[in-house]
Amino acid sequence: MAPVEIIETAAFDLNKPILIEGLPGLGLVGTIAATYLVDKLKMEPVGYMVSEKFPPIAAIHNNIPLHPARIYKSKKHNLVVLLSEFIIPLNSVYPLSTAILDWAIKKKVSKIISLGGIVVRGEQDEVFGIASTQALVKELNANGIKTIKEGATTGVNGVLLAECASRGFPAISLLAEAKPNYMDPRGAALVIEALKRVTGLEIETSDLLKESVEVEKKMVDMLDKAKAAGRHYQKAGEELGGMYG
Amino acid sequence: MAPVEIIETAAFDLNKPILIEGLPGLGLVGTIAATYLVDKLKMEPVGYMVSEKFPPIAAIHNNIPLHPARIYKSKKHNLVVLLSEFIIPLNSVYPLSTAILDWAIKKKVSKIISLGGIVVRGEQDEVFGIASTQALVKELNANGIKTIKEGATTGVNGVLLAECASRGFPAISLLAEAKPNYMDPRGAALVIEALKRVTGLEIETSDLLKESVEVEKKMVDMLDKAKAAGRHYQKAGEELGGMYG
Amino acid sequence: MAPVEIIETAAFDLNKPILIEGLPGLGLVGTIAATYLVDKLKMEPVGYMVSEKFPPIAAIHNNIPLHPARIYKSKKHNLVVLLSEFIIPLNSVYPLSTAILDWAIKKKVSKIISLGGIVVRGEQDEVFGIASTQALVKELNANGIKTIKEGATTGVNGVLLAECASRGFPAISLLAEAKPNYMDPRGAALVIEALKRVTGLEIETSDLLKESVEVEKKMVDMLDKAKAAGRHYQKAGEELGGMYG
Amino acid sequence: MAPVEIIETAAFDLNKPILIEGLPGLGLVGTIAATYLVDKLKMEPVGYMVSEKFPPIAAIHNNIPLHPARIYKSKKHNLVVLLSEFIIPLNSVYPLSTAILDWAIKKKVSKIISLGGIVVRGEQDEVFGIASTQALVKELNANGIKTIKEGATTGVNGVLLAECASRGFPAISLLAEAKPNYMDPRGAALVIEALKRVTGLEIETSDLLKESVEVEKKMVDMLDKAKAAGRHYQKAGEELGGMYG
Amino acid sequence: MAPVEIIETAAFDLNKPILIEGLPGLGLVGTIAATYLVDKLKMEPVGYMVSEKFPPIAAIHNNIPLHPARIYKSKKHNLVVLLSEFIIPLNSVYPLSTAILDWAIKKKVSKIISLGGIVVRGEQDEVFGIASTQALVKELNANGIKTIKEGATTGVNGVLLAECASRGFPAISLLAEAKPNYMDPRGAALVIEALKRVTGLEIETSDLLKESVEVEKKMVDMLDKAKAAGRHYQKAGEELGGMYG
Repeated sequence: MAPVEIIETAAFDLNKPILIEGLPGLGLVGTIAATYLVDKLKMEPVGYMVSEKFPPIAAIHNNIPLHPARIYKSKKHNLVVLLSEFIIPLNSVYPLSTAILDWAIKKKVSKIISLGGIVVRGEQDEVFGIASTQALVKELNANGIKTIKEGATTGVNGVLLAECASRGFPAISLLAEAKPNYMDPRGAALVIEALKRVTGLEIETSDLLKESVEVEKKMVDMLDKAKAAGRHYQKAGEELGGMYG
Repeated sequence: MAPVEIIETAAFDLNKPILIEGLPGLGLVGTIAATYLVDKLKMEPVGYMVSEKFPPIAAIHNNIPLHPARIYKSKKHNLVVLLSEFIIPLNSVYPLSTAILDWAIKKKVSKIISLGGIVVRGEQDEVFGIASTQALVKELNANGIKTIKEGATTGVNGVLLAECASRGFPAISLLAEAKPNYMDPRGAALVIEALKRVTGLEIETSDLLKESVEVEKKMVDMLDKAKAAGRHYQKAGEELGGMYG
Repeated sequence: MAPVEIIETAAFDLNKPILIEGLPGLGLVGTIAATYLVDKLKMEPVGYMVSEKFPPIAAIHNNIPLHPARIYKSKKHNLVVLLSEFIIPLNSVYPLSTAILDWAIKKKVSKIISLGGIVVRGEQDEVFGIASTQALVKELNANGIKTIKEGATTGVNGVLLAECASRGFPAISLLAEAKPNYMDPRGAALVIEALKRVTGLEIETSDLLKESVEVEKKMVDMLDKAKAAGRHYQKAGEELGGMYG
Repeated sequence: MAPVEIIETAAFDLNKPILIEGLPGLGLVGTIAATYLVDKLKMEPVGYMVSEKFPPIAAIHNNIPLHPARIYKSKKHNLVVLLSEFIIPLNSVYPLSTAILDWAIKKKVSKIISLGGIVVRGEQDEVFGIASTQALVKELNANGIKTIKEGATTGVNGVLLAECASRGFPAISLLAEAKPNYMDPRGAALVIEALKRVTGLEIETSDLLKESVEVEKKMVDMLDKAKAAGRHYQKAGEELGGMYG
Repeated sequence: MAPVEIIETAAFDLNKPILIEGLPGLGLVGTIAATYLVDKLKMEPVGYMVSEKFPPIAAIHNNIPLHPARIYKSKKHNLVVLLSEFIIPLNSVYPLSTAILDWAIKKKVSKIISLGGIVVRGEQDEVFGIASTQALVKELNANGIKTIKEGATTGVNGVLLAECASRGFPAISLLAEAKPNYMDPRGAALVIEALKRVTGLEIETSDLLKESVEVEKKMVDMLDKAKAAGRHYQKAGEELGGMYG
């Protein structure tokens, strides 16, 4: 199989949609925000991503087991959301980034917006931006979002944006200030407010922080189970000593 | 060779059978239950699974050495049982899961039922379910089996179910409460009772717990030998220092 | 190259010979016994096995360097002996096992007999057997060799026998009680006596124990040299730090 | 994908240009010097290098995320600069070296000049040279640059030069004395002065040391972020225990 | 690319030459002796060996960077010398050995003579031999060189000789007693004297020990630089934590 495969499970009947990407990272901000969007906008599953290098875990939501890296669509909002509930292993970052961009181009996506977290610099009320073109940098600034002038960014967010910049594909990254805790729902709330400002997306957010805390609870539970499973595997492997070379 | 290969050794003359999968996991419940079914229903070997990444071990049963991951059939019960006596290495989980589902589809299997264990939550008398469709969730509930609404599940069980859910293939997982001991025959008994309820499978189970304890004894013995062999390999490798790069 | 290659260096002019396999394992019984057969029956080299994953060592016998995994034939006794002087690395066990069986079938071998060791259970005077078919189990029992009813067996011995059982190829394994020392010539003597009983092979064995001790001495010497070389490599690698990634 | 790929993003309209290569190494001299050239000569991006084995990081410069290994051109100066802001992983050194040379030959590059650092031997005011031909050695000496007569050189610099020497391709390496600190802008200044002497390149360098310190600051900041991201990944991976095999 | 590639850089106009192989090993005897031959017989470069698994280092000799594993020829002496200045990584030993033998056969080499070291057994004045055929064993003995009757030999020397023995290709190994220091020029001197006796090669050796000490000095210096570079890489990698997966 290819290093990362994107498998579609439903018709993709959108016209130049925006693709929002929410992968884990600081405070798991991206995943929490993307999950909130999927729930709130009643988005439908349209595909998933798999790789032999992804952790062998399934998330259970609403009684049904799901691959942890999934894609949803909303025809009403002409929107695609791509999220992962588990951290992308380092050696999958580059192949996943190019797989996402190649797929986005094939699907005639008009713009990619990544959501994520960044270490708190002030009072945790700000969202910073990066963009793949100078025109988009100006657009962000015009929306009151400070852009990062010099620095480094890592993971799928960073590599995907660099690919977009190299190929001239329009893409921005919105990074909410987040605390280095495992999850930070406040960061998710911040980044969704910024997303509304940038896209004009109409989404009721009066319950945003409360809901984000709900999403966080489910993810904490899920990650605890995953950790327990990891320890179980590890222990079993150790007991069989050299047999699991 | 492919990452995981399913090799058939006998004619597969069944008509849309149910495939029951019993792989190790918490309490080795799946393997114990599947072994009980194979013995009790006098099922015949029909194939096995191999991979260069599986541990190089053979189980000896009734004087004959066997690959540890095997497939059995019962024409009378229109049933296939797939079991493994050894924990599937992490990097084989995804390829094995898709190999099983691809094979099940090719063989026109009507439904996949995975048996496994879950950490005890109450008095260890319950079996929980997960299903690949909402219709099957209702069917489980109608049979008095609580389904897991939110959470995570790992290993072949989890990944296979997520694949089934994604492709719309009917599959359920029955998870008996089990103690985190190496093996838990009580969990195996619980899961088989649930299996009977769900499938209507007729199987005499008055001796179930006693037999499960027998199965457990053999597996403990086998695993002890495997561990000793693992240590032997490890020690020999260490003595030859850098020669086994 | 293939994971394991069997390279022939002489014509194979035998007619449905028995193939005796003596690989290292508990007490190195298999290797010592196989080496004794090759010497005593004046067998000729007919090939060798290589793999990029085998340790890069050559054994020196009678002034000539040899690959450590070799095949010999005796036209007179219609016999093939396959031996290795070094432990097969874990990740080569499965490919070597299938390579041996595929080769045996191609060469029209009539039966495979593996020689090995098993942890002493009584007074170290017994040889236990495993067989790939119930008919061979009976044959072993008829020759006074107890068979192992339930358990596990590892390494090439075990995996090869499971392959033979799956494909219905006649194969037995003779396992002498051996002490967990590095080598146990007494185990080798026991297993050869059992081999004579099972095959009717005529071989003078009055000097067996004495000769086995000789073989053991050479192997101890050879392994000491291999260990020293391993340490030398390891030290040189460490001194060059990160350069040997 | 190939182990290392060079991807062009703009027309390459130069005529037998000189290719200057500045990869990290002692004091990050090569990267600092190459970055200074790109800025000062207002060079344009012409491509980048990617590999699944490169660290998944993007550098942000002037608000735009960029792949850390990039290629620039200056039509005015008939010059190409190839730089990397991150250390090339050991297992990518050989494939990157041959990829660069193959690409240089395809693009009809007239000469490759690598910039780097070398441990301070005297008062840190000297630049040493290595060359791929004896004629170039003489040329270096004629320009007052001492050549290294005997020794070893490592990384892409070394392997690329050895490839050039083997194929008879003109290439030199200029190595400024540098302190084993993380970055040494003084070394970068030294090597650029030497580059001017060797190539006759006209470049205003009155602000060189001051500017180099600026470049250094940005790189320190970027590397700090990369390190923090690395720790974040590592921690998350450890928490999920055996799931990230 | 193939695991190991031999790349020729000049015409190979020899007629059934002897190939002398000097790879590192105990006391680096092989490399020192081979380097002495190349210098003393004014041999010309004819090719080099590369592999992605070789350490990314270039040796600098006489101002020019060179691949560390190289091949030289002398038309006058009808001789080829193959040497490496760095220890061959374990996983490259088998592919390099077969690459050398395949190349030697293609080039119609008449005999391969490997030079190396062996742990001092007496007063360090002896050279021991191994040979690929019994005729060559007798020839060695006739030249006063004791052969090793039983034992083990490792690395390219050992595996190459075993390959030669298996294929019936004439090859000998001359192993001088050497001290387990990093380098032992005295061992190199001993092995060259033996080489003269065995081949009748005319080579002035009055300055042999002095020259060998010179070669040793250069190699110590080169290896020190390689070690420093290795540490530099390691440190940089550690600082970037999980980013260099």
